[in-house]
Formats: sequence, structure tokens, C-alpha cells
Amino acid sequence: MAAAARAALPRPHLPLPSSTLRTPSISFTPSSVPGPRSGGGAATTAAAAAPLHQQVTTGRLGDVIEAQQFDRAALNEIFEVAREMEAVEQGSHGAPSRVLEGFLMATLFYEPSTRTRLSFEAAMRRLGGEVLTTENAREFSSAAKGETLEDTIRTVEGYSDIIVLRHFESGAARRAADTANIPVINAGDGPGQHPTQALLDVYTIKREIGTLDGIKLGLVGDLANGRTVRSLAYLIAKYKDIKIYFVSPDVVKMKDDIKDYLNSQGVQWEESSDLLEVASKCDVIYQTRIQKERFGERIDLYEAARGKYIVDKKVLDVLPKHAVIMHPLPRLDEITVDVDSDPRAAYFRQAKNGLYIRMALLKLLLVGH
Amino acid sequence: MAAAARAALPRPHLPLPSSTLRTPSISFTPSSVPGPRSGGGAATTAAAAAPLHQQVTTGRLGDVIEAQQFDRAALNEIFEVAREMEAVEQGSHGAPSRVLEGFLMATLFYEPSTRTRLSFEAAMRRLGGEVLTTENAREFSSAAKGETLEDTIRTVEGYSDIIVLRHFESGAARRAADTANIPVINAGDGPGQHPTQALLDVYTIKREIGTLDGIKLGLVGDLANGRTVRSLAYLIAKYKDIKIYFVSPDVVKMKDDIKDYLNSQGVQWEESSDLLEVASKCDVIYQTRIQKERFGERIDLYEAARGKYIVDKKVLDVLPKHAVIMHPLPRLDEITVDVDSDPRAAYFRQAKNGLYIRMALLKLLLVGH
Amino acid sequence: MAAAARAALPRPHLPLPSSTLRTPSISFTPSSVPGPRSGGGAATTAAAAAPLHQQVTTGRLGDVIEAQQFDRAALNEIFEVAREMEAVEQGSHGAPSRVLEGFLMATLFYEPSTRTRLSFEAAMRRLGGEVLTTENAREFSSAAKGETLEDTIRTVEGYSDIIVLRHFESGAARRAADTANIPVINAGDGPGQHPTQALLDVYTIKREIGTLDGIKLGLVGDLANGRTVRSLAYLIAKYKDIKIYFVSPDVVKMKDDIKDYLNSQGVQWEESSDLLEVASKCDVIYQTRIQKERFGERIDLYEAARGKYIVDKKVLDVLPKHAVIMHPLPRLDEITVDVDSDPRAAYFRQAKNGLYIRMALLKLLLVGH
Repeated sequence: MAAAARAALPRPHLPLPSSTLRTPSISFTPSSVPGPRSGGGAATTAAAAAPLHQQVTTGRLGDVIEAQQFDRAALNEIFEVAREMEAVEQGSHGAPSRVLEGFLMATLFYEPSTRTRLSFEAAMRRLGGEVLTTENAREFSSAAKGETLEDTIRTVEGYSDIIVLRHFESGAARRAADTANIPVINAGDGPGQHPTQALLDVYTIKREIGTLDGIKLGLVGDLANGRTVRSLAYLIAKYKDIKIYFVSPDVVKMKDDIKDYLNSQGVQWEESSDLLEVASKCDVIYQTRIQKERFGERIDLYEAARGKYIVDKKVLDVLPKHAVIMHPLPRLDEITVDVDSDPRAAYFRQAKNGLYIRMALLKLLLVGH
Repeated sequence: MAAAARAALPRPHLPLPSSTLRTPSISFTPSSVPGPRSGGGAATTAAAAAPLHQQVTTGRLGDVIEAQQFDRAALNEIFEVAREMEAVEQGSHGAPSRVLEGFLMATLFYEPSTRTRLSFEAAMRRLGGEVLTTENAREFSSAAKGETLEDTIRTVEGYSDIIVLRHFESGAARRAADTANIPVINAGDGPGQHPTQALLDVYTIKREIGTLDGIKLGLVGDLANGRTVRSLAYLIAKYKDIKIYFVSPDVVKMKDDIKDYLNSQGVQWEESSDLLEVASKCDVIYQTRIQKERFGERIDLYEAARGKYIVDKKVLDVLPKHAVIMHPLPRLDEITVDVDSDPRAAYFRQAKNGLYIRMALLKLLLVGH
Repeated sequence: MAAAARAALPRPHLPLPSSTLRTPSISFTPSSVPGPRSGGGAATTAAAAAPLHQQVTTGRLGDVIEAQQFDRAALNEIFEVAREMEAVEQGSHGAPSRVLEGFLMATLFYEPSTRTRLSFEAAMRRLGGEVLTTENAREFSSAAKGETLEDTIRTVEGYSDIIVLRHFESGAARRAADTANIPVINAGDGPGQHPTQALLDVYTIKREIGTLDGIKLGLVGDLANGRTVRSLAYLIAKYKDIKIYFVSPDVVKMKDDIKDYLNSQGVQWEESSDLLEVASKCDVIYQTRIQKERFGERIDLYEAARGKYIVDKKVLDVLPKHAVIMHPLPRLDEITVDVDSDPRAAYFRQAKNGLYIRMALLKLLLVGH
């Protein structure tokens, strides 16, 4: 939401009546986090990291752009509302929620992401809201004629009450939010951020394990390119007594910027090449897909990397009874299908939590707590 | 719907409250039918046909996968509810039905089929339900990254109450139903089944002629490749004193498996090359499109076949007053447009019946009779 | 809507109950306008123009096909309802309108136009109606198998209450309306008409300036190919004491058919190559994009044309305080972005007016005033 829009009331031509524009009760704090492409090597702290990435400024209420915009209190509030959403969803048949009745969400997707789009649209509908869908805005919209994202946003905000944007360029969500007079949710902007994924990951840990303080977390797979594990490492650092194990092929190791950030926050971490040993000590094993598209023509490197750390029955054998296995999906064979029937396989419940988190955000942004 | 889901109550993480999971009052019986690609030649009976295709087992309640899963009582119940749906649809303006209020249908289409998709979505909305649409899941979804259909289903079932699946692989609907904890409707799986088309065809005959027992049916056009006429031949065999005439170019004649099945059921059939003579004796002429894509490079064979049996004014001249002409659509020139204005041209009413049949199935699967 | 449908009541198989088929209170008059491709040179008047284009006949109630079907009284009524729609839209949160509850609109788009589609779908939903979407009917539908538009319409009308058609062929909307038993709205048919754009343009002038009689209008940019400016010139001629200035590069000058028409209506017009001088005298500057696709391989001509008349700060400096700048969007650089923050930049409000105009049309066509 553009700052000017919040400052100047009453505003002509503003789509929302002022009553619906009250600031949601989510608290946000200025913060920073190394960007996903900020590369390794130099020791950076959160405070010093500004040159490497966009500094988040205060007062950006009303949009969801980056995982790091949320402090611990904000996270707790979102998770509380998400928990309430489970009851709303389960009670929806016959007597659906009318919380967002009369609100219209535009899903403006410049690259396809069926899973994310469907979960946002389901979230809106489970709360009684309506949806305008653009499944492939890049090819089908005025963008093809050279219209700027800003102009598209100015048009679409006239037709809707909230915009969910998926874009191929890092920073696009921030540009959209700076333009729009209605809330914008970042549903992934290229190699940049995917904050609702990060939120649902942390919520899943809390929901499955019961706590976030004190947990031991094994991050497995492609730690260099996966924005998921990078955002998760960042967010989890807001909690106490965290221990993180990085388990990944050498070519896709966690980069130094995140390690430095964890150091600055007093989070313990270590690297390991023994998945079984790590699994025996963890509350959460977070497996990720090795992304073939990152290897270009080096298919040999990809093939070597993808087979190295597989979550299978042997991992289940050593994994504590209370622990869970997570995965952002889609998965290929980095978790074998015989793991699915184990109660500790949490990845489909994790996907479902995406629905609750998105319901919570839509409610908080559109009508407040 | 996965058997495990029905067996084990209460279930954690199950999307539907148990009250909505009560078994719909559709009765299903174990049965079998030759598959559409089972090829000709060998004499097979229903009982012996198992090696040629998937045997339908008992207890598959709650999904619509194959035309042959329905016995005569189930068909009657569906048709009764479909008839009620005509009134529901006509009374929808201003005071729409709330029968499926709060229910969410996901249309997961791996190949495009606008007609089928729109009729399912209209059906859901005419009953007060909501829709999540995926128009081109093959290209746009995680499938492109290698995700299995089963994993996609496990995710999508978390966002919706019923899945309507269109897929390019025969058997995909069965796999989806075996995975899902919510009902699955097969909206066509490749060369396999398209059961809602078969149901609307039989419903149309009943609705137009008034009865199914004793009818005389002329199946015209591409009888070798059309799953429509094959399914129709199978379903109509459940009724008494049926007579079927096959009228088709030699290259696309009805295959022996269906003929053998009709023999085993005591259904009379004969082949004819005289469309006018057949039309003069029938209650229903069911015309089909010669599918160019089945002829590969033999355009000459296609051209010869497509022009051979055309439904035109001459057919109308000999067709009994009470009889009707049907077609699954789209049609090219196998029915001339001057036939459209004749009251016996039933094909657009037939398409409309697809709406009522799909409304009936959605109601039966989601809330019961 | 097909004439037969209106004539013969009661009708079997008609989707709408007769109560909803009452003639909307929009009055239409027979009229004519030179078509956008009718070419220049010969002097044509409205009365003599018939050979160059389709003559609009009387009695075509219930469809929106061409800008010229509306007389001044009809325009006034639409604008009055559009104004009411502003309040409906702003009051929609929490207590949304139920004016079109239970009505289903099918957006049948044979070529993509995200802006137009979203505004129609938003309009339907702001009035409590529901939507069936086809974003790319050309590639995804039965059209690919050779089905005629007429057959597609006959099917889709069975699933919906109103069809919004975007097509690549001029005249397609008229053919659809002649076929359908439900209202059809033309959302652009190729080089033909885009009547809702024309309506929103005229509505925007009235809304921004307060009057239509007596206004001075500068049409800038591609006047040869833009159906927008052609339709606008036609519609504005229905009002009194209009003065139009044409400002365009030589290669895309306004064609003689429109000039002749304006002459026949007593509308004053002149051509100018001095944008600043025109801007200093106008109430409305209507800028348009030079369409690269019209120049084929003559990129040099395109580049020369596109940079010639830019609306920038210098134009703002001479533009009267009460005047406004309009643009049908998308814009490239023919209006510089530093103009956006000026209160006289009306183009995003203009886009928003498209919502109100479409709400008004949907209401008028489906339930009347």
C-alpha cells in the first residue's frame, strides 16, 4: 500500500471506504535480512547487511512483502489467527464464513504456480470472499504490449480489494505495494521472496512440535538456491535456543550470508554430511528438491547432487518419535513414497497449513483481527 | 476417495467433517466392461473380460470413475435428481440454491476441455457452491517439475471438497480416487472413460423419448474410436428390449468387444450401411464426429469416411415424429445446420442435460439425496 | 439475443424464466456508423454508409454489440445507472449487493484481454453475480476442433445467463447475438467494435467535466487504426456544439469516413500538428498508443510516429485547470509518468469507470433498471 494513500484521508478515487482501511493489528518492525542472491564470503551482520540488499523501512503496514518484515509478536498473532482458521474451514459446509463477504481478491500471476494460486483462492473463498484470476499475466495481459507493472497495478486495484502478486522479477512485489492503494501480498517474486511459504513453514513446526523455542532443525538438500530454506533459517532465528544442521551436497551448500546472520543472532549451526546422524537428533527434518534448472548443462553435477541425501525408511528408523519430516513440495524422489504413510511425514499437512496462513493474512489485511 | 479414508474414523488432518462424508445414497455394483482400447476379435463376456481391462471392485462409493460402476437403480436415482435440478436451475435468479453453499470444487484439467469444464463449474455454481479452476494443469502446475498426480491430488484435496479431474492418461481418475480423501469425478481420462458424458446421453434419451426400455438406437459415425458410443452401448444394455443399429464407414466399425458384450446381455444389434433405412426405424439417431486425429497421415481415408453418413434433411424426412437426433458435440458437418431448427434435433438440449447430470452428481456426492 | 427467442413465448428449453427476459428499459435506435476498416477517400454520410459496413437494424434489444446502437437517451440512462454503481461498489464490503445474485456470466474470450476480462468479472461480482471464465477459448476450446462460433454459443448459453464475448473476427459479436437466447455483450471483436470502451470513454468525459454538450476534444496519436478514437468521435457527435481536434502523425491520420460523418452531423473538427496549442484550448486531451503491430516491418515509420506527440509536463503547463487527460491504456511512453500525479491525469479513473459502465450494462440487461 502506498504511503501516500495511508497519509491522506479522505482520498478521491480510492477504492476502499476508509472504514476498511484501518491499520490491521499486525505489528511490523524494521529489520533486514541478507537477500537470496547476496552471495557468500564477506561476514555480514543484520545491521551491516544493508548494502547487500533492500533495507526494510518502518511503516510498511498493510502489505506482505518479505518474511523479515514480521517480528515475533506479529508471527504469534498470525499463527493464532491461522489456528482459528482451521475451525472456520472445517465448519464451512452449509454455513460458510462471511468474514470477507463482498471483498474481491485479484490473483495476478506473471508466472504459473498452481499450488500457490489455488491455496490463496481457496483461502479467500473459505472466508466468503470472491476472486479474480489471472493465471498467466505475463503472456496474456497488457504486459505483452509493454505496460509497466505499476500501470497494471493501478488498473487492477480499481477492480479489487487486495492483490496477490506472483512475479518473475525480484523486487516486483515491493514496487507493486509502493504503487497500490490496496494491500499487496507477495506470492513469490522470482529469486526474491516468498513470505507466505516461510510463514507456513514456521507455523507447521509450531503446530506439529508444539513449540518453536529450543527446536533442532535439519535443513537438507539444495541450501544454496532454495529461497525456502533461506527464509526459514532467517525466521527461526527469532526464537530461542535454536540449533540448525545443514546437510547438503557440496555444490549447493548454505551460503555464508545466512551463516553470518545466524552467528549474529546467537543461533547455533553446524554442517554435516551424515543425514542419519542428524535425523537422530532433530525435531524437524526439512528436505528440499535439488533444482535441476540451476545446473544448466552440468547434468552430471545435478545427478550427483540429487541422489546424495534421500529421506527414506532408514531415516524414519532413527528419527525421534515426536519429530516430523517437512518439504515445500513439489517433491521428486528426495523423499521416497513409502515414507508418506508414516505419521511423521508432515509435508501434506504443511501444504494444508498454507491455506490457514493465507486465510489468516487475508483476514488480517482486509478486516483486521 | 481412498478406502482408508472411509474406514478409519476419526481421522486427523482430514479435510471434511465426518458429517459430510456420509455415504451418498447411490448404489454401486461390481461390474465390468471392455475397455475402449481392448481391441477386437476374441469373444469376451463381461465375466471373462477382466484380463483386458481393470475390474471394478465393490465398495467404490463416493467417486465417479467409470460409466459401468452404476447399476440400473443408481442410474434411476441420478436421473431423478437431475430432473429436480432443472427446477433448481430455472429458479436460480434472485433466489439461488444454497444446497452446496460452503463447498469448494477444484477443476483439475490436465488437458483443455472448455465445454466439460464450464458445465461442471456452472453446475457447482447453480447449487450455490464455489470453484477453484485449473484450466491447463499439465503445463502450468508442478506436474511440469515432475510431481506425481498422487502428490498433486494430496495437495489439492487440502484446498477443496471435491475434485473434477480431466487427464490425458487412461486410469488417471482411478489413481486419483485411490489417493484422495475427498470425492473425485472423472471428467475424461484420455482414451479411457468419460462417465458423465455417458450418463447425460442416457438421461437425454429418457428425457426425450420418455423411456429407456424398448428403444431402438442408431449409432452412427466413428464407432471404433469414440468412447462416447462405446459407453452408451454399454449403459443402454442395462435396459430391456434394446435394439442397436451400427452405421459406420468400414475403417471405424464398432469393435468386437462391445458386440460380444451386447450378445452376452441379450441385446439385439445389427450393422447397416443404409442410414435412411435405419433412421426410419429408430427412436434415437446418435451421430458422432469422425475424428481426423485418429487417421494420422491417411487424410484420404479420413475424407472418405467423414462424408459417408451425414444427418441431413433427407434423414429428417424418414425419421419418426417422436424420434430425436443426438450428438456429443462438437460437430463439424456430419449434421447439416438446416437440421438444427427441427424439434427433433436434440443435441443442444443434450449438452444442457450435461449441466443437470453434473448438478445431480455434485449434490449426491457432497450432501447425498 | 436471437429475435426468435424474444418472439416466441413460452419457449421450451430456454434458459431464462420469462420474468427475467423482460425487455430492459434501454432504448435503442436504428443507426449506422462507418466501420473501422471502411477506409478513406470517398465521402460517405451516415445514411449512405450502409454498403461499407453492417447497418444496425431496429429491435436489437438485449445485446450490446456496437457503440452506435445507443441513442442519447439510452446513453443517459446507462450513465445514470453507472453513477449509482459507484455507491454499490463502495458499499460492497460486508454487505455486498445481491442485485445479480443467482445470475451467471460466461466470459468467452477468443483472444486474451486481461484488463477487459477482469473488469467484467469484477462488475458481475460487485453485483453479487457469478462468473464462468474462459481465458483463451481459441486455443483451449472446441473451436480448435472446428466447431463454429454459433455451436459454441448454443452450448454456452445453456450454462449461463449472459455471454461476454471477445473475438478476433469483426462481426463475431453480432453472429453470437443472432444465435443466442440470452444477452450477449461485445467485449471487442477484432478490428470491429469495442462498445463498452466507447461508453466508458464518454462516461468519463461527463463524469470529469460535468457535461458533454459544448466540449472541446483533442484526439491524439494513432487515429487511423484505433477503434477507440473512432468510436469516441462517433458517440460524441450525438451531443451539441462539439469541437474535435485531430493531432496525429501523417501515417496514422483520421480517415475520411469519420470526418465525413462528423460533417454530416454538424460537428466542427480540424487537424493540427501543434499539440501544445490544441491542449491550451481543450477540455479533454485523449491520447492513444501508436500500435507497433500496424507497421509491419516498417519499424522506422513506427519510431518516427511514436515520438511525435507526447503528453508531458509541457502539455500540463498549457492545459486548462478544469481539463483532463485520458488514455484507453495500456500506455507506453506517449504519456510520461511524471504526468500521473497531476489531478488532471484521468486515465486510471477512466479505467475504473469501465467497472461502473459494465456493472450498469449487466444490471440493465439482466434485471432492468
